[in-house]
Amino acid sequence: MREVILASQSPRRQELLQRLVPSFSVQPADIDESMSPEMTPEQAVCDLARRKAQAIAQSHPQSLVIAADTIVVCDTIFGKPEDEADAARMLRSLSGRAHQVMTAVSVAGDGREKTEVSVTDVHFRPMSETEIADYIATGEPMDKAGAYGIQGYGSLFIERIEGDYYGVMGLPVCMLHQMLKKFPEKG
Amino acid sequence: MREVILASQSPRRQELLQRLVPSFSVQPADIDESMSPEMTPEQAVCDLARRKAQAIAQSHPQSLVIAADTIVVCDTIFGKPEDEADAARMLRSLSGRAHQVMTAVSVAGDGREKTEVSVTDVHFRPMSETEIADYIATGEPMDKAGAYGIQGYGSLFIERIEGDYYGVMGLPVCMLHQMLKKFPEKG
Repeated sequence: MREVILASQSPRRQELLQRLVPSFSVQPADIDESMSPEMTPEQAVCDLARRKAQAIAQSHPQSLVIAADTIVVCDTIFGKPEDEADAARMLRSLSGRAHQVMTAVSVAGDGREKTEVSVTDVHFRPMSETEIADYIATGEPMDKAGAYGIQGYGSLFIERIEGDYYGVMGLPVCMLHQMLKKFPEKG
Repeated sequence: MREVILASQSPRRQELLQRLVPSFSVQPADIDESMSPEMTPEQAVCDLARRKAQAIAQSHPQSLVIAADTIVVCDTIFGKPEDEADAARMLRSLSGRAHQVMTAVSVAGDGREKTEVSVTDVHFRPMSETEIADYIATGEPMDKAGAYGIQGYGSLFIERIEGDYYGVMGLPVCMLHQMLKKFPEKG
């Protein structure tokens, strides 16, 4: 079996990829993460994942490269919060309504590349200012798109989802599993 | 704060309850788990959770007791598989279609009791006979209602859900969090 490289330093993606791939290395892609304002959110997140995969694939042509990117769409696009005030602003926006989480996954190998996107609706219950402050104090929001983690205390505010939980967590394993079947194990 | 008792030996429920309650004891309820054929699935799962909570609450009137029960509804009601052949039968039924997972939660204390149910639609992609056999060989299906775990390798077969992931896992933490607010911390 050839080498598999995960182009992401997210510990959640590393944990989830282990369900599919027993052994892989991690090499985060250093790309310009700015998004073109002319793209839709789906196009923009796919573009980011594709450029991450290609950046690593160029220097590792014998490997299979997996990259992913996640954005939260709630009127506008939320990435990771810049500071605690930014996290509070995002959580106030998410409170008491639904938003979308989009995770694009790109697989590159054999000179080929395939990118797909998982879109999930996430419904937050109303959060009080005290709950927002207490949640930020846990430290959980700071490294996550949209300032929450569905796999942690963020779960206490999520009434329901429509889509893939693992897409919200950062790596839609069912979708990726099917994508990997299109790439033969030996290059 | 008064003592909290979880009337379930499920390691998944114990793990999830820690997000809500920092300290609790575990005391599984020993009740007759047969379901009345005259009840709807929602009524039957609520009845099981309620009887578990009441069984423990009777001998611990000063405590807050939390009980839960989960069933999978796919034409009929699936509990935990009896053996590997039963697990294969359940997985063949779930393959390539949607089913419902119902988790009822019952909270008892102060001579009061409150029971609510979380219902989630789970969509399985088609599974091959080889995939079913390989999945059973992991051992994961055997102690779980419907013969799969959404938090493990079962995730590779689940395309989407509509509802609460944690209800499928066995304890809908957002719903329980709201239920607990109706029970004061001191009895």
